[in-house]
Amino acid sequence: MRSLDAIFSPKSVAVIGASITPGKVGHDVFANILKGGYKGTLYPINLNAKFVLNAKAYSSITDVPGDVDLAIVILSPRIALKAVEESLEKGVKGIVIISAGFREVGGEGLEIENRIVSICKKAGVRVIGPNCLGVINPISSVSLNASFAARMPAYGNISFISQSGALCTAVLDFAADRDFGFSKFISIGNKADVDELDLLRYLHDDPNTRVIMIYLEELRRGHEFIEAVKEITSGYKSTPVLAIKSGRTSAGARAAASHTGSLSGSEAIYDAIFKQAGIIRADSIDELFDFANAFAYKSETALGKIRRKIPTGNRVAIVTNAGGPGILATDMTMSSGLKLAKFQEETIKALASHLPLTANLHNPVDIIGDATQDRYENALTAVINDKGVDGALVILTPQSMTNALGTAQAIVRVARRSHKPILCCFMGVIDVSSGVKFLQEHGYPVYKFPENAAKAFGALYGYFKWLNRQHLARFEFEHNKERAVRIIKNCLVSGKTHLGGPDGMDLLECYGFNVLPAKLAKNEDEVVDIAKSITFPVAMKIVSPQILHKSDAGGVALGIETEEDAKKTFNEIIDKAVKFNSDALIDGVLVQKMGEPGDEIILGMNRYPVFGPLLMFGLGGIFVEVFRDVVFRLAPTGRNEARRMIKSIKGYSLLKGFRGRPKADIEAIEKLVVSLSDMVINHPEITEMDINPLLVHGEGKGATVADCRIILGK
Amino acid sequence: MRSLDAIFSPKSVAVIGASITPGKVGHDVFANILKGGYKGTLYPINLNAKFVLNAKAYSSITDVPGDVDLAIVILSPRIALKAVEESLEKGVKGIVIISAGFREVGGEGLEIENRIVSICKKAGVRVIGPNCLGVINPISSVSLNASFAARMPAYGNISFISQSGALCTAVLDFAADRDFGFSKFISIGNKADVDELDLLRYLHDDPNTRVIMIYLEELRRGHEFIEAVKEITSGYKSTPVLAIKSGRTSAGARAAASHTGSLSGSEAIYDAIFKQAGIIRADSIDELFDFANAFAYKSETALGKIRRKIPTGNRVAIVTNAGGPGILATDMTMSSGLKLAKFQEETIKALASHLPLTANLHNPVDIIGDATQDRYENALTAVINDKGVDGALVILTPQSMTNALGTAQAIVRVARRSHKPILCCFMGVIDVSSGVKFLQEHGYPVYKFPENAAKAFGALYGYFKWLNRQHLARFEFEHNKERAVRIIKNCLVSGKTHLGGPDGMDLLECYGFNVLPAKLAKNEDEVVDIAKSITFPVAMKIVSPQILHKSDAGGVALGIETEEDAKKTFNEIIDKAVKFNSDALIDGVLVQKMGEPGDEIILGMNRYPVFGPLLMFGLGGIFVEVFRDVVFRLAPTGRNEARRMIKSIKGYSLLKGFRGRPKADIEAIEKLVVSLSDMVINHPEITEMDINPLLVHGEGKGATVADCRIILGK
Repeated sequence: MRSLDAIFSPKSVAVIGASITPGKVGHDVFANILKGGYKGTLYPINLNAKFVLNAKAYSSITDVPGDVDLAIVILSPRIALKAVEESLEKGVKGIVIISAGFREVGGEGLEIENRIVSICKKAGVRVIGPNCLGVINPISSVSLNASFAARMPAYGNISFISQSGALCTAVLDFAADRDFGFSKFISIGNKADVDELDLLRYLHDDPNTRVIMIYLEELRRGHEFIEAVKEITSGYKSTPVLAIKSGRTSAGARAAASHTGSLSGSEAIYDAIFKQAGIIRADSIDELFDFANAFAYKSETALGKIRRKIPTGNRVAIVTNAGGPGILATDMTMSSGLKLAKFQEETIKALASHLPLTANLHNPVDIIGDATQDRYENALTAVINDKGVDGALVILTPQSMTNALGTAQAIVRVARRSHKPILCCFMGVIDVSSGVKFLQEHGYPVYKFPENAAKAFGALYGYFKWLNRQHLARFEFEHNKERAVRIIKNCLVSGKTHLGGPDGMDLLECYGFNVLPAKLAKNEDEVVDIAKSITFPVAMKIVSPQILHKSDAGGVALGIETEEDAKKTFNEIIDKAVKFNSDALIDGVLVQKMGEPGDEIILGMNRYPVFGPLLMFGLGGIFVEVFRDVVFRLAPTGRNEARRMIKSIKGYSLLKGFRGRPKADIEAIEKLVVSLSDMVINHPEITEMDINPLLVHGEGKGATVADCRIILGK
Repeated sequence: MRSLDAIFSPKSVAVIGASITPGKVGHDVFANILKGGYKGTLYPINLNAKFVLNAKAYSSITDVPGDVDLAIVILSPRIALKAVEESLEKGVKGIVIISAGFREVGGEGLEIENRIVSICKKAGVRVIGPNCLGVINPISSVSLNASFAARMPAYGNISFISQSGALCTAVLDFAADRDFGFSKFISIGNKADVDELDLLRYLHDDPNTRVIMIYLEELRRGHEFIEAVKEITSGYKSTPVLAIKSGRTSAGARAAASHTGSLSGSEAIYDAIFKQAGIIRADSIDELFDFANAFAYKSETALGKIRRKIPTGNRVAIVTNAGGPGILATDMTMSSGLKLAKFQEETIKALASHLPLTANLHNPVDIIGDATQDRYENALTAVINDKGVDGALVILTPQSMTNALGTAQAIVRVARRSHKPILCCFMGVIDVSSGVKFLQEHGYPVYKFPENAAKAFGALYGYFKWLNRQHLARFEFEHNKERAVRIIKNCLVSGKTHLGGPDGMDLLECYGFNVLPAKLAKNEDEVVDIAKSITFPVAMKIVSPQILHKSDAGGVALGIETEEDAKKTFNEIIDKAVKFNSDALIDGVLVQKMGEPGDEIILGMNRYPVFGPLLMFGLGGIFVEVFRDVVFRLAPTGRNEARRMIKSIKGYSLLKGFRGRPKADIEAIEKLVVSLSDMVINHPEITEMDINPLLVHGEGKGATVADCRIILGK
């Protein structure tokens, strides 16, 4: 028996704290199990009562005559601890603690929670909760509603994990309204022991779960979560994971020493985790349901095989009995990363032979308001058999000749003969309900609005791309880690924590970054000597630990061509710096060889407590903060992720070569992203950094660091 | 009687083409009027039948004994024309033609449609349709369902205009499900005579319409529409207009001679029209309903006054009985342009006195899962009375202690004492239905998901900003229109239609644009002469009618400092141009003074058949096409719109001064946008143009045109 089976499919359950008073959680949970038709043995545990709802009560779980697989605890913390101890003594195999007052209130509550986890771990017993709604397993062979939500959901193939108990009750209510069934339904509460990752693993192995929906407020594991979920969402036996994460915008900007620091934050972290793990993110609860319906959609093929219906391309055919909704679907199709399929000659011919003269034979196919089920069947068959079509959206509006049920049956017939996904939109509620019901009962996704159907199709296609993502050979680097360790040590010893120019460049060189020759000048004469030795033209930049954004202080001058200019510029930069911040300690002015021109890129990192280093890549220079055309990933980041990062920014079209500009050396960027990842993994002392700009030259010509900023911590 | 009253509130109706055969449109429309409980006199007109559904039939409308206000025509085009002629003879005051086969099929159908419009116009009778679903007026004093949609909607304060008949039936079905009532419901079909603008004007004056929803596929009026709708949506007696426009993405990019041409298109036009007219755009049908509910929300104040509840600021208070949904609402609040209100001391104290210790007293206020209606009432009263709060979102999730109806009643009590909007989200469907029903019956907007409530609040706030937009004094310019007319004439006479450098610059000078001195060089020696006369450094640019994107052809060189360089560059540019397009006729190379540095802006225009010149403004240079940070308006564009344009791009933060960069001369841009508008209005020969880049210098220092491209047509 797998570790969590005792919780989801117990043969016997004891409710410790079962109460005789209706309205009390201890009563309601017991009543819900009873009313839910649980197929095992149920024992109420109550210190004083003889019976709870006609069932003989026991004063302690240890008094129960038979074995108990699962203990459900609804007691205040101190007595809950005692109940857990007795449960372990009794030999239970799983525990769900519904009551609150633990970690979330701190103090003794937190201590008791830790104590419970520790003794259960020792006994090899897993715990869900505390402070949760409970768990539900609607499958008829178990039929367990061990929760204080009165509503037992229908059985289905979608599992739901929620970090919010309140959301659970609302979701159950929606589900009932939508005829939406669940495989497992779990409220994880404080997740003292079992957390979302344990459940994702368990549900991935669960033959009754095809899709996992998760409502998430925070994660307590970063890299481990990514690696494990990537396994779950990838490959032939993958389980799609759909998430809604709250707290999208609440992070807000925080004061930070680097661009990377100020642009990242909790939203960037979660976005990175979801992307790296292959989790599909929904924008709203409504969308979560919409997507889940599409992902649960498997159908039997002609050969009796069950397979998930994922499109293998993005070319969509639309069949509609009304023009307006067809255009709405077209709009959303295009903005969901899909394309309208272009039909082959023979498809057009087939459509022409079945459709009236006024029909539109091109995509979106308008089969006209008086379309019967036959017309739908013929048109859908024609387009779904087209080689240039990867799936279809069928739109039905209720009109006088419309037969919603007949059309639904026709769609199912066509779908059974094809491996391509067909999503339906039956507009309206009342007039089309017979058709909607038929489709739902047969496991076909059906939507109220064409926009939702198109968006769900886009999510399916996104998953296809994830499943079929590129796997490139790993880069093999020989970094000079020892030298980097020495540089960092020296800086820390001498109290330097904000590395600008020279030290930062030295550090970057250890990891294969090309840097421009540069030297610090303390006076006019040194400027000239250095400029001559590295050859004109040169750039000059203020160096001061108090001046991080150099251009804010007028501390940057480029393209200096002559000795005279160099001297003048030195003095100007120093003057401006003093005016900018009279307390600034000025180390001098960095004189640097002017770089070859290139596209300006920013690479950066910010380190977070639980999640570790978060890497950033994007278009650099002045536009970083205006357009925020940047993307994040948690390190370690390999070559595949690096390529996905590069391709995902808007500015990628610039890098690919644009309006006569040369193509940039994209492989060089890939390498440097991976090198940066190696660097921040190897040196935890680096807490935050920007390389901005990194000048990326033409194909094969590499990239040069023009400036950097590295912050060291202890 | 106003012109359309005969259509919406007729005292008598004749259905011409009323059929005795159920399923035929002519039968169903007649039956729907009858079943809908129409309060006037109804006459079926049928050439052969004696009775239609028990009502005595007449073979022609001219045989009807009494007066007929409204004729509803359901006949094929040729006999429809005859029916219209007879109707006019009979003296009807309005006509609705439901049948199809007119303009949409072309040929004779189009001719007949034009004929009908012309004779009705002469008679002063307005026509709705043809090719439409009909019209519905549910108010009990009329109760007219003159449509082939069987469902008579409930009465309410929202009017709906639809260009798609099929969408009408689906919308009626949704409305029935949502308890959504309508004031008027109109399917406009081919809009041969009455179009959306006529209806917007009529409904604006309609005392029973508070909000107008419109589903739009295309407009046939541009500037006139903007001016008229601006009046409707502005001022104290404004009527909010909500639109869903399909065909958002279908326009696609088209081959165009200018950036403006390739970036604009039908989506840009409609977006501009909606912004200029103050129309609120919804992204989906669902959102259209959501917004309409919020805008229809008026409530009685303590003094018995009815007023629309629009927030006067963007500071939102959230009151919830569950944390998760509170965070979801917070997210959408922030991304809808709103802020979470910060409470005053006394508000926190008031909350503390009413709420349990575990409650969160700060925004979003979490009154905990066991919240009763009293707790809701106290918390909501406290926050809504806070001076720093402009409105509230109340979230209720169904939990064991929840009283949905009691809470709904409490919310209505609080709302009646405040002028601030309170939007509700009652999560779930079944468990909360009593509360939802109570709120709906009392006209309070209530949503299923917190995200939807927050987004609707954002739309309300957007409307507040529109109502209170800035009105600046007009600019007074003295343009040299005569010179511009001469330049254009000369170009056209000499067959020049693609004006690059010199001619374009001359034209721009007539409208107050600063241009850089420049001259065309035909050979090496001329280059040197010109460069010396305008002083080095200079820029050099290829001039050829066949080379529009100069940098694509390697045809641009900047910062040329010496005579030698100038000669070399001239030859290089010519060589590259020949390689780029061997058929290109090369006029020479433009030698231009190098401009003072400045922010690169693009200004442009593309002219459209119905709508006239569409202006574009945005960040210029290489980023135009990558970030598409541009905004459009239909000309004429005055100072107020120009300022709104400038403020609405992302790059505005760059122009305002950013990281040590000087603030740009924004007033200069405002002036030039208005000048550009004047120019393209004055000279219809200009069909398309780009000014790119326009270099905008620091505050008070104006802007300089660095390059332009102007296309002339006949």
